[in-house]
Amino acid sequence: MVKYKEVAISEFFEKNSHLLGFDNPVKALMTVIKEAVDNSLDACEEANILPDIIVKIKNIKENIFQIIVEDNGPGIEEKYVKQVFGKLLFGSKFKSLGEAGMQSRGQQGIGISASILYAQLTTGEPALIESKVKNKMHYSCKLIIDTSKNIPVIIDEKKLETIKEHGTKITLKLKGVYRKVKGPEDFLKYVAIANPHAQITFFGPDGSKKVFKRVVNKLPKKPKKVKPHPHGVELGTLIKMLGQTKSRTLQAFLINDFSKVGNTGAKEICSLAKLNLQTRPNAINREQASKLLAAMQQVKLQRPPTDCLSPIGEENIIKGLSKEYPADFVAACTRPVAVYRAIPFQVEVGLVYSKELPTDKQINLIRFANKVPLFYQQSECGTYKAVVKTSWKRYGLQQSAGSLPIGPVVLAIHVASVWVPFISEGKQAIAPYPEIVKEIKLALLELGRKLQRYISAEQKKYAKVRKIKLYEKYSTEVATSLAELTGKNKDDIMALLKREIAKRGEGL
Amino acid sequence: MVKYKEVAISEFFEKNSHLLGFDNPVKALMTVIKEAVDNSLDACEEANILPDIIVKIKNIKENIFQIIVEDNGPGIEEKYVKQVFGKLLFGSKFKSLGEAGMQSRGQQGIGISASILYAQLTTGEPALIESKVKNKMHYSCKLIIDTSKNIPVIIDEKKLETIKEHGTKITLKLKGVYRKVKGPEDFLKYVAIANPHAQITFFGPDGSKKVFKRVVNKLPKKPKKVKPHPHGVELGTLIKMLGQTKSRTLQAFLINDFSKVGNTGAKEICSLAKLNLQTRPNAINREQASKLLAAMQQVKLQRPPTDCLSPIGEENIIKGLSKEYPADFVAACTRPVAVYRAIPFQVEVGLVYSKELPTDKQINLIRFANKVPLFYQQSECGTYKAVVKTSWKRYGLQQSAGSLPIGPVVLAIHVASVWVPFISEGKQAIAPYPEIVKEIKLALLELGRKLQRYISAEQKKYAKVRKIKLYEKYSTEVATSLAELTGKNKDDIMALLKREIAKRGEGL
Repeated sequence: MVKYKEVAISEFFEKNSHLLGFDNPVKALMTVIKEAVDNSLDACEEANILPDIIVKIKNIKENIFQIIVEDNGPGIEEKYVKQVFGKLLFGSKFKSLGEAGMQSRGQQGIGISASILYAQLTTGEPALIESKVKNKMHYSCKLIIDTSKNIPVIIDEKKLETIKEHGTKITLKLKGVYRKVKGPEDFLKYVAIANPHAQITFFGPDGSKKVFKRVVNKLPKKPKKVKPHPHGVELGTLIKMLGQTKSRTLQAFLINDFSKVGNTGAKEICSLAKLNLQTRPNAINREQASKLLAAMQQVKLQRPPTDCLSPIGEENIIKGLSKEYPADFVAACTRPVAVYRAIPFQVEVGLVYSKELPTDKQINLIRFANKVPLFYQQSECGTYKAVVKTSWKRYGLQQSAGSLPIGPVVLAIHVASVWVPFISEGKQAIAPYPEIVKEIKLALLELGRKLQRYISAEQKKYAKVRKIKLYEKYSTEVATSLAELTGKNKDDIMALLKREIAKRGEGL
Repeated sequence: MVKYKEVAISEFFEKNSHLLGFDNPVKALMTVIKEAVDNSLDACEEANILPDIIVKIKNIKENIFQIIVEDNGPGIEEKYVKQVFGKLLFGSKFKSLGEAGMQSRGQQGIGISASILYAQLTTGEPALIESKVKNKMHYSCKLIIDTSKNIPVIIDEKKLETIKEHGTKITLKLKGVYRKVKGPEDFLKYVAIANPHAQITFFGPDGSKKVFKRVVNKLPKKPKKVKPHPHGVELGTLIKMLGQTKSRTLQAFLINDFSKVGNTGAKEICSLAKLNLQTRPNAINREQASKLLAAMQQVKLQRPPTDCLSPIGEENIIKGLSKEYPADFVAACTRPVAVYRAIPFQVEVGLVYSKELPTDKQINLIRFANKVPLFYQQSECGTYKAVVKTSWKRYGLQQSAGSLPIGPVVLAIHVASVWVPFISEGKQAIAPYPEIVKEIKLALLELGRKLQRYISAEQKKYAKVRKIKLYEKYSTEVATSLAELTGKNKDDIMALLKREIAKRGEGL
């Protein structure tokens, strides 16, 4: 009577594309660019190449745009190209629960193929993929995704010689709406701020060209893979890990499959759980696993390792912000690595104060997760909550309760983590875990104090300048009167006064 | 160098369970109950059975709960049980783009298997499923989901005789936090309000029992499947439909695969698109499809059919609300079917005013999508936005700008649709499409006016009662004075006064 069927993941996301950031044409256009640029940056960094990325947007007809993203990355081997682009949930970055992971922009192997899916859904056009791997032929193919099977269908493929050394290029045609402000150009500007080691060239649909220049000639420190920490594992994950491990004893399992467990830690855990160190992991039953987990969480261990993270760094944040904004004052703060739910994360904040920015508007908050700008759901983001909860009046900015402060300020907040807790798959807002909000507030405190010192110094300077201008204004009159009273030469008095005024005005 | 792999959908959701409503233990417990109850109601209605559902929650140990949901539905055939429960994206309700669909609670075939996934992730325990189909043996199995392959692993299965006629029962053990207020009991109360044809028995973890009684003995009108409307199709979907249709001519395709296209409509579309009616659908290229789509969207057609929807109905909303709340005043409004993006939807609103409810607190807003209560993300929901944008002062309630009104009111809002546009897969907030918000506001307007009449009548009544009480208070004095002045009998005058007062107070 009732008919059942299995649904392919691509069919699911074809119907639920709003879950992946394609809920409206403005956002869809942004999402496609974001996914392609994320992939390019990750691929370049992975291969130790300073990224050089070109983004072109052409307006084909009303609300239909062609998007081209090209990079100088290592390229993708021909045998993988079709799958990486033409199959959802196929990629190199997804880490299962219990598997070692590290900080990266993409995490799921779903973004770029979902973009292709959205393009074919709205225009019916295939994606064009070009890939050049060093010492291999240039490979290109046109493909669409067969959503009922989640497989790529190749429409056309070619191999040819080319002078390009290596890189990947994707061309898509899709329904979208282009915004000049808070659109792709701003997105790339923010990317350039968080990634000052990348050169990004943007061609807008109006024929404009904008180059976001590389200002740092060194690649960021490569993050290392990190194994799960015993304090952050669920029972189900532990049972799965016990069944899949290559370790032959419980002792080896604890030491090899987790971070920060040594011989002592392993012994303590086993004794607390009343389990033999030499037990075979796959012989441990659910009841024992439950005791093991309790012991794992009870035993004191070092905090998770921090080398799985790759922060931007204070110096680079300052360079990144300074090149994109006129800065009278700029400061940055990179916090030490902290932990939420046994997952390491790190907060960085940068702040620009500039008289060229509007003084009567809310500050411009730029948010980043793993160096990727976040554009939507600002008010639900942990970064936003930390900013509005900070009392900015004491740092010299106006602020209404529960709102962003007002002033000529750009505030950049970056949260880096092996696993950034987004509130939805659109990946636009960071969950306001108390640990994360606290770290952001501490960084804001530090910068806020510096800002306050700057503003109050500026105010003092301004008062002094006014005073000196007053002296100057009346100096002739004073000199004349003094000359009359004393009978001395007016010009001499004037010269003396000028010297005094100049001395007091030094450094202004 | 780079390693690629394919990820199973269940592994993806195991790691991203927050996308499906399992982001914290309070919500996780609610989500499991919601998914199981949704399935039970859908199955009963589909099989023309008045639903009788039992929900039991047992507190096993700290933060670990056993949840049992049992129904009197038709049961699930043995050969499907394992897949329905042990495989994500397997079910009976998912409709591909272009396929005919209808209003139902579940839509994706993902909710109940995701619950099992969450249970095994947090406690490592398998799910116990029991199913009895009429005239078949009682079948039960314990299963877990192998997330790396998205397949069920059967741990134990049994068949036996039973006196139970038909039904399904699921038992899960999972990590959760139980809330007495705004928890599962309130959820089931709201389910009972929107589904007065269902009987729901709830056993709480504190040993309490609560029966939400059936007050309507008739099943709701069964929704019919509806084909896509030509005005609501994307080019990619059209191309997919052209390739998959069983129709042999473009004319047949337009008439058979879409709703509201007849011979005239088909001819008009084809002539506008400069295509021959007899063309084979799969011979139409992308360019022609694009012209076809433009023509389809240009030609005037009837609005989508409405029998794909199954509203609660004004009478039943009133019955549902009255049985769960003390009501001094109750009203309901079912709006005619409206359309967003060529998808039909229908708005219903019910309102209770009761002197027993708090008068100094914000009203209690209860939200429903396809008869399922929504519990989270209230402030992002289209229903909420419609309520705060309505000016309630004119209807007799206090209200601060941008907030819910204040008063002793329960307001229930129901949005029914073939495709409810949720803002995320957690399915907790309805996207505030202007068409949907507008319909809700119109319904609120109608009820608001009725409420205003009630409140102002109440106020008049109250003023009259006060007046009469005043008369009564002074009647003896007045009678005494009149008796003295006129010399008539005081008791006679008193009787006359009393009669007059009684007459004026009639109906109070």
